[in-house]
Amino acid sequence: MIQVVKIGGNIVDNPEALDVFCQQFAKMEGPKLLVHGGGVMASHIQQSLGLKPIMVEGRRVTDKKTLNVVTMVYAGYCNKTIVALLQKYGCNALGLAGCDGGVIRARRRGPKTLSDGFTKMDFGFVGDVSPTSFNVPFIRNLLTHGIVPVFCPINHDGQGQLFNTNADTIAGSLAAALCAGLVYCFEKKGVLQDKDDDNSVIPSLDAETYTKLRLEGVIDKGMVPKLDNAFGALQKGASRVVIKHALDLLEDTGTVLK
Amino acid sequence: MIQVVKIGGNIVDNPEALDVFCQQFAKMEGPKLLVHGGGVMASHIQQSLGLKPIMVEGRRVTDKKTLNVVTMVYAGYCNKTIVALLQKYGCNALGLAGCDGGVIRARRRGPKTLSDGFTKMDFGFVGDVSPTSFNVPFIRNLLTHGIVPVFCPINHDGQGQLFNTNADTIAGSLAAALCAGLVYCFEKKGVLQDKDDDNSVIPSLDAETYTKLRLEGVIDKGMVPKLDNAFGALQKGASRVVIKHALDLLEDTGTVLK
Repeated sequence: MIQVVKIGGNIVDNPEALDVFCQQFAKMEGPKLLVHGGGVMASHIQQSLGLKPIMVEGRRVTDKKTLNVVTMVYAGYCNKTIVALLQKYGCNALGLAGCDGGVIRARRRGPKTLSDGFTKMDFGFVGDVSPTSFNVPFIRNLLTHGIVPVFCPINHDGQGQLFNTNADTIAGSLAAALCAGLVYCFEKKGVLQDKDDDNSVIPSLDAETYTKLRLEGVIDKGMVPKLDNAFGALQKGASRVVIKHALDLLEDTGTVLK
Repeated sequence: MIQVVKIGGNIVDNPEALDVFCQQFAKMEGPKLLVHGGGVMASHIQQSLGLKPIMVEGRRVTDKKTLNVVTMVYAGYCNKTIVALLQKYGCNALGLAGCDGGVIRARRRGPKTLSDGFTKMDFGFVGDVSPTSFNVPFIRNLLTHGIVPVFCPINHDGQGQLFNTNADTIAGSLAAALCAGLVYCFEKKGVLQDKDDDNSVIPSLDAETYTKLRLEGVIDKGMVPKLDNAFGALQKGASRVVIKHALDLLEDTGTVLK
């Protein structure tokens, strides 16, 4: 089974954790792909350049200058640091933004209604992807040659415009497009029954129970978009979805979605 | 014949010129590869971050923080901007740093004796490449699939360390490794007989005449490392080397080295 693994800023920002993660990822058997998010470096660079990072409901508002910064940080620094580390550990990684080989084509996100139900927000140069956005034959060809694609969350529209894209959505859509397994890594050992007890991992979760736990407030705000994405990937064709700690990659732990 | 084209900062820094260049490059027939340099953006970002760009004999001294900046700017912003533009013009470009697919492996440059003949200078995280640094089967496989590799001047040592590398050297070594044609683009229409007359292009130049013109001071300081590289590529196996203006790519102009 092909496996898509997603890591976020908490790993990308931490050199020691990133090194351990890359060692483990390199050891994973079978065809695999990695999707990474950004982390805090983009905000640091923005501030150093006199720009003010603006986040609305957890998503970065991306004007032209911010797009340049995230393109530098995600496609340049983060992507090449990860690829060079994976190469060190014997994994033949190949870094990709969506424009490379025309591997992903995104659509610019139109103004979006916020959670208050009426405010319309234009997030700027933000692109959305779906399972049909991917050049699947190209990806399968890379995998056949033993190459491990490493996706940063920068995409394009085919008309020369780059976009910032949510990395969770890329990972979910990619897994669906490839009918692959999906491993969402984050800083907890899985979806927790009790937010204050790291050992209260729910071993498996179906959509019905998820809705129930969400209504009861057991699953909190930060986890909601992640789980929405994860259940969406499952519905759209991902063969298996697991949510686990980034440094437990080789262990049979975490929450399996059903 | 495979063609390797090199562009420098004067094109990378100028959006209008870059757009025209990419249109022309997309129209070039046959298998081709692009190597791009950096430009002034890296120095701007360095200064914004409170770092002081240090250039010695035309080469950037690259400490750890500077390496992070050039990795961001060259492998992120410049490379993805160029790849997205080429995709717009129907050219199936794929951006590569040396770590991607293990395509180039560089060696860290040891302390170098400067032109005064005795000062030893450590340029920091700077890597050198030669024709044997390239994963030629991987590159040929990409070309066979109609993919156009676009190289930024960031490389690795296979041990997780990234390096800044001179883009002229990458282009020359790449052309030699592939027995390819090499087009060095720059801001003049070729090697000039009279520096002040842009129309005094020398149509063809052999190594002997080059040495003579250099001794006579006709060929000046800035052109010397470029021509040394170009003649080196020819000696090492490049099938043809032309030096021309970046926006004359489709025209039969410039200086052909013999």
